[in-house]
Amino acid sequence: MYYRTDNPHGGDIYDPTEPVVLDFSASVNPLGTPEAVLSAAHTSLRETWRYPDPFCRELTAAIAAREGVPCSRVLCGNGASELIYAWCAAARPRSAAETAPCFTEYARALGRVGCVPERYAPDPDRDFLPDTGLLDFLREKRPDALFLCDPNNPTGRRFPPELLHQVLVLCREQGTRVFLDRCFIELSDGWDDPSPDCGEFPNLTVLGAFTKSHGMAGLRLGWCVSGEEALLRDMAEACPPWNVSSVAQAAGIAAARDREFPRLARDLIRRERPAFRASLEALGFRVIPSETNFLLFRGPAELAPKLRGRGIGLRDCANFPGLGAGWYRAAVRKHGEWKALMQAIKEELWRETS
Amino acid sequence: MYYRTDNPHGGDIYDPTEPVVLDFSASVNPLGTPEAVLSAAHTSLRETWRYPDPFCRELTAAIAAREGVPCSRVLCGNGASELIYAWCAAARPRSAAETAPCFTEYARALGRVGCVPERYAPDPDRDFLPDTGLLDFLREKRPDALFLCDPNNPTGRRFPPELLHQVLVLCREQGTRVFLDRCFIELSDGWDDPSPDCGEFPNLTVLGAFTKSHGMAGLRLGWCVSGEEALLRDMAEACPPWNVSSVAQAAGIAAARDREFPRLARDLIRRERPAFRASLEALGFRVIPSETNFLLFRGPAELAPKLRGRGIGLRDCANFPGLGAGWYRAAVRKHGEWKALMQAIKEELWRETS
Repeated sequence: MYYRTDNPHGGDIYDPTEPVVLDFSASVNPLGTPEAVLSAAHTSLRETWRYPDPFCRELTAAIAAREGVPCSRVLCGNGASELIYAWCAAARPRSAAETAPCFTEYARALGRVGCVPERYAPDPDRDFLPDTGLLDFLREKRPDALFLCDPNNPTGRRFPPELLHQVLVLCREQGTRVFLDRCFIELSDGWDDPSPDCGEFPNLTVLGAFTKSHGMAGLRLGWCVSGEEALLRDMAEACPPWNVSSVAQAAGIAAARDREFPRLARDLIRRERPAFRASLEALGFRVIPSETNFLLFRGPAELAPKLRGRGIGLRDCANFPGLGAGWYRAAVRKHGEWKALMQAIKEELWRETS
Repeated sequence: MYYRTDNPHGGDIYDPTEPVVLDFSASVNPLGTPEAVLSAAHTSLRETWRYPDPFCRELTAAIAAREGVPCSRVLCGNGASELIYAWCAAARPRSAAETAPCFTEYARALGRVGCVPERYAPDPDRDFLPDTGLLDFLREKRPDALFLCDPNNPTGRRFPPELLHQVLVLCREQGTRVFLDRCFIELSDGWDDPSPDCGEFPNLTVLGAFTKSHGMAGLRLGWCVSGEEALLRDMAEACPPWNVSSVAQAAGIAAARDREFPRLARDLIRRERPAFRASLEALGFRVIPSETNFLLFRGPAELAPKLRGRGIGLRDCANFPGLGAGWYRAAVRKHGEWKALMQAIKEELWRETS
């Protein structure tokens, strides 16, 4: 018996009783990890006996250069997830808001500081596209903190840029801190839209990671850029010392300099996604139009456990507020891989009707 | 400018303005990292794009087998340091005690839950050996939590086994939870004394790591064994998901099976430590008799920054409650390495007197 938190996510392929051969439940780069990142990771192992740089000096400088901000606006963590918790521990909002459905860690981290977020749910019948109703919601609730995810996990929708700007202006006016999660941006349409400027919006913290873009989920590295340097200092205090391993720091420095690898993945995603989507729709499933490297769709109940029994992983989205049984998230992977998924789904459907 | 927490530790050799060539400030295995651990780490990088096992199933089983306890009594973390914070977040003691001087992270983690530890200081004139006065102190204070470190960092003293047993019995009687840090035990005299039994003492949590014994400081992995399974569950909830990287899990599985490498280091430490100590004493420094892989000594003020200017790292112990300026900790390293340190110290002393 192990300590399993009641906190399901994609990518847990390690249950020995349910082996996963082909995993669509984690939405990482379909091409894996770039050679430059792996090479830096291997090289760093030479000094495994040394403690890591507790302040991630070289990595912070590499990310700051990449993001075009001063080092004093950057903080690194043991995965983006650690920074979500550190932000809540540092900001200690008494009230908060998020959109629904969204990444479940925001509410979990808020819960750790005694805060339950209020939720604004974009209309499912409009494919979960964020709309101006959010502005009215924020004016009414005036929360201390707002969590946004762009593109949004698990819907795959980008936040309309003009609406995002309006939200940021409103939040700056009314004293709402904004936490904007852009961990999927590099594998998304419009990936080169500039990130909102933390100089212009001092109430803004932007979360980033190479987890998806550079296939580094196993190494644990995230960062954030914030307009509030005092908040970053409190976040650093909220993390244990040496929280970012040497191998993650070395790999992150290599990833920060590699703009080509995510481009190759975007090319693949733009090529495969329409056909993958059409294939799911041809089975009568409802598929939400995605602007990133995964698809949210609604199919028959019990599809995920059935596929799991065949060694295929889907993210069952039943535990997302605003979704429920029958909703699934699948990463866009290589042609042969999603074809194999479709074949397995069809066989399961035939089995049921025969 | 980076976020430097005001929390000095040994091993920070990364300041580009003060390069360190020979580091005695971090007390890790003088032989580095075993081949089996490095090999497992390299192999694990093949699947860097995958998320780690969020529940560390195989690693937990390997540590449980090594410690002779069920898996349900073991929790792994991103370094032993993360588990100190998670323990405080889960136990939320209103009052706590520690010995002085001791590892500074206990008080820092307690501070995060609003608790300031009371301190029992073993007599410096008796070389900081823990004594029965601690029992009276605990009877008087009746703290919710007690932090002990065996062998103690930075004094290098083992806790006398009979006194430790008396402390555990008293704490069990009066409802004091005990957090016993044994992170240095494998490189210490009496390393094979059995760990106190968490079955016999359900109020006990024992902290362990391969950081020092297997030279894995860069990878970040710690674990604890506890008699309180509900506490471990709360600790798991207090950590972010995927907190232990894939490479740390793979390396930890290899380390759990390698009993030989720490033995080689113990042989070296037992061979070199008496001569290293005699060498420091020959300069008139006071050296505390150590039972582990580092020496605490008192020398001239400003010794650490002067050696740092020569590329040599010493742990300046001025920030430990109960010590102060002029106290230093130095790892026991290979013969030629500590000889080089002694030569540098002598040159600094000559320079001052000439």
